[in-house]
Amino acid sequence: MNQEAAGERAGADAKDLFRKLDQLCYPKSVAILGASEQFVKWGGLLTANLLNGGFEGPVYPINPNRATILERPAYKSLRDCPGPVDLAFITLPKDKVLAAVRECGAAGVNNLVIVTSGFSETGAEGRALEDEVVAAARAAGMRTLGPNTMGMISTRQKLFMTGAVAMPPVGGISMISQSGNLGGQVMMWAEQQGVGVNKFFGSGNEGDITCTDLLAYLGQDDTTDAILVYLEGIDDGRGFLQVARTVAAKKPIVMLKSGRTKEGAKAASSHTGALAGSREVWDGAMRQAGIMLVKNPMDLIDGAAGVENLPLPHGNRVAIVTVGGGWGVVATDLCKEYRLRLPALPAEIVALLDKQLPSYWSRANPIDLVGTVEIDLYVSAIEATVASDAFDAVITLGCIGASSIAREIGTVAHAVAPNAMNAETVAQFEAMASGIEMTLRSEIARLTKKYGKPIMNVSLDRRHNQVVIPTGDGKHIVAFNTPEKAVRVLAGMAWFDWWRQAHNGGQSARG
Amino acid sequence: MNQEAAGERAGADAKDLFRKLDQLCYPKSVAILGASEQFVKWGGLLTANLLNGGFEGPVYPINPNRATILERPAYKSLRDCPGPVDLAFITLPKDKVLAAVRECGAAGVNNLVIVTSGFSETGAEGRALEDEVVAAARAAGMRTLGPNTMGMISTRQKLFMTGAVAMPPVGGISMISQSGNLGGQVMMWAEQQGVGVNKFFGSGNEGDITCTDLLAYLGQDDTTDAILVYLEGIDDGRGFLQVARTVAAKKPIVMLKSGRTKEGAKAASSHTGALAGSREVWDGAMRQAGIMLVKNPMDLIDGAAGVENLPLPHGNRVAIVTVGGGWGVVATDLCKEYRLRLPALPAEIVALLDKQLPSYWSRANPIDLVGTVEIDLYVSAIEATVASDAFDAVITLGCIGASSIAREIGTVAHAVAPNAMNAETVAQFEAMASGIEMTLRSEIARLTKKYGKPIMNVSLDRRHNQVVIPTGDGKHIVAFNTPEKAVRVLAGMAWFDWWRQAHNGGQSARG
Repeated sequence: MNQEAAGERAGADAKDLFRKLDQLCYPKSVAILGASEQFVKWGGLLTANLLNGGFEGPVYPINPNRATILERPAYKSLRDCPGPVDLAFITLPKDKVLAAVRECGAAGVNNLVIVTSGFSETGAEGRALEDEVVAAARAAGMRTLGPNTMGMISTRQKLFMTGAVAMPPVGGISMISQSGNLGGQVMMWAEQQGVGVNKFFGSGNEGDITCTDLLAYLGQDDTTDAILVYLEGIDDGRGFLQVARTVAAKKPIVMLKSGRTKEGAKAASSHTGALAGSREVWDGAMRQAGIMLVKNPMDLIDGAAGVENLPLPHGNRVAIVTVGGGWGVVATDLCKEYRLRLPALPAEIVALLDKQLPSYWSRANPIDLVGTVEIDLYVSAIEATVASDAFDAVITLGCIGASSIAREIGTVAHAVAPNAMNAETVAQFEAMASGIEMTLRSEIARLTKKYGKPIMNVSLDRRHNQVVIPTGDGKHIVAFNTPEKAVRVLAGMAWFDWWRQAHNGGQSARG
Repeated sequence: MNQEAAGERAGADAKDLFRKLDQLCYPKSVAILGASEQFVKWGGLLTANLLNGGFEGPVYPINPNRATILERPAYKSLRDCPGPVDLAFITLPKDKVLAAVRECGAAGVNNLVIVTSGFSETGAEGRALEDEVVAAARAAGMRTLGPNTMGMISTRQKLFMTGAVAMPPVGGISMISQSGNLGGQVMMWAEQQGVGVNKFFGSGNEGDITCTDLLAYLGQDDTTDAILVYLEGIDDGRGFLQVARTVAAKKPIVMLKSGRTKEGAKAASSHTGALAGSREVWDGAMRQAGIMLVKNPMDLIDGAAGVENLPLPHGNRVAIVTVGGGWGVVATDLCKEYRLRLPALPAEIVALLDKQLPSYWSRANPIDLVGTVEIDLYVSAIEATVASDAFDAVITLGCIGASSIAREIGTVAHAVAPNAMNAETVAQFEAMASGIEMTLRSEIARLTKKYGKPIMNVSLDRRHNQVVIPTGDGKHIVAFNTPEKAVRVLAGMAWFDWWRQAHNGGQSARG
């Protein structure tokens, strides 16, 4: 964030920035300058993605050489469009961008997304051109995302306009990415994993709109519940952190800061030209600002699933409920390594579960249900712990997905004894197993809500490949495919709640 | 390993142990004492799994109350079986086990797998019974896996006999697990991820055959290329490590030691009754013995995929070839954090690639191909680095799976413009993308073999869910779905090669 931008956010100008970004995210019409019939080109891909995403306003492909593009009417220039153009995507060759921006200004376009590359990321000459382009846009009242951005998404507006084929479901997670390909991949994962997305910005060269601007905007955006950031480097680190601290008091920021190591910083510099800064300085400063730091791209999705779907834990005391002893041991080690505590089971929980669980149960935390497949016992153990003042969170291992084993057994039995276990019986068995699974999911969603504590599930269903899974009655629970992910996300959430209580007058906004 | 077992391995008795374990792994016939028609019971599940796996010898379900089990003849007792019984699985209630073992001895059974629980893991009384059972077996010349084991697998014998429905492909990885459910899950993952398995043992209570016995056996087993171990605790740690060091000189051992933390050790103790030992002591001693340590169950599978399918790197100097800059930065950070080095590109590689890559290529390590989709350029960059004396290994990011984006684009274009992009054109486009992908896989397999260096691939195909993937011409390459996994496995392999050179007279057996 430059000083000018920082000043803007201080008062009436901040309102203006946010108004312009609202306009950018909810355009009434979109023109694509450089639209192409060749869908492997950016101008074809963006057009195809935009149309495929279901954007409901007019879409104007602009191409002087074609009457139609992808079976829609194409227009020779902005002047030929039958209605006003709100947002213009520019994918023209670099040397045509400045003239196009001036044309957009003259035509009353409100905002620009410039996908074209070859600007400040290539050196001084490119930077001079970028400055000229942005100045021309600003002079005409337009704000610019890019240049060298891979695009943006605004799910509520059905605006899917990136170089990646990604259509995540509508939800509360918004993302800012300084890498187009990495951001696009995270959006693909969001779609695959059932993580609901609100807005996505590839920030590109940040010739005009910066990461800091976008963070401030998303911080006050009521439809954004949590923010993901992939950051390589930034000019005004202080300004970014100042905004981050204000935003983190309101909603979680999960960030992957790459260029952490000297070598990574060098790679980042050759990638975006930004100064990455030393790891030690960044790490400490980011934590002080309340940013939840992660190390791997997929951690962004895991973290998003947690903060979007679960209450924050108001402490680090964890109960583990496991269907198998080995998993309990593995999760116990991981909890300790991520600084989560495993208090002993209070006597009243032991007494309560003694009445319900088989005599050989562990009577300790982890609660080892020793391969029990009775769903009522899972629910008893989960409720006893989540309801207890002794625990801030519960991790279940092998409860979600346990019924899949029954289904697999049915299939095997049918294969070896098709008469004793006929197809109809297998189908009944599968239906029963599915019913049990969905009942358990519903119960976990109910207990999460009732007690306001996170329940992190680790599924051992081998077909499990989605972190956010539906209960069947309109709710969702979170189920990871490894204990490490569950522990890592929970530890991050516990840390964030601690930060918020320490820095936010003791209030935890989502708790 | 107790002193007696240690003594055995020293000479002729070791040969006897290995002979008995060969007999256990390649039985000529199998009886199941406690076989059941109810497939959700152990006696039903084991029988169904064994039959489903295609074991080619006679299978004798033993059950005094039934004429048939799963549509096969059942037998009232061992004496009623029409042929000799080589291996007996016992899933009877605890109080019937001792008599059954004596019956097995009398009937000339060679070895036992006792699944029944309630022995030493439950306390002194159970331990006394376990001792009595094992003594009775040994007196009759039988060796025992278990009690309280979840079973075993021997893929070359088509012997799939565990409580988990897991049928991994035949390969060179063998596993010893002190947790049945965790081991079963790893076997399911192996099946899912395409990791080839040779033998699997749930070691159970280790009343007779211990982890150390099994490790020594697998160390000299020619069909086992690498060994996975899930260990919670062990009585004779010194004996185990002594064997491990000898085995590691011959083949990689990838181990997850749980009970690393005080709390984890306590959980392990209540799970198996074993003493887990302090983390510091174990960590150092295990590394000295050449064991590749991992922290998460899934790391066992990732590590297995690496050591089974790739040559070891003879150093830690890595070249990164990436289709997108952001991924290169992320991987660079991870490499440094896992102590891998990223040397600068030698001038001759820069000169070579200058002739082939687009003018804007990074001229640095990571080699950023900036979204190029031309397969020849991927291969050029990979070959230039893997062939160079400056590098011991190559990591590719986004090369494998790049063609999937083309396929997705085709689908989107067809959805929005079904005439311009008709179904036939989409199909042709998909076929072309698949062809490109398979060509790249073949080239990577060829280069790996030609230069004897590992090429670790990170796939960005969202549908990618298998770590070992076929080339289409009978070979396999390794492709992870996150950069972290690729870096973690490569760092482990580089460490192991270093250990082996330092401890093995400079020889690297697989290099």
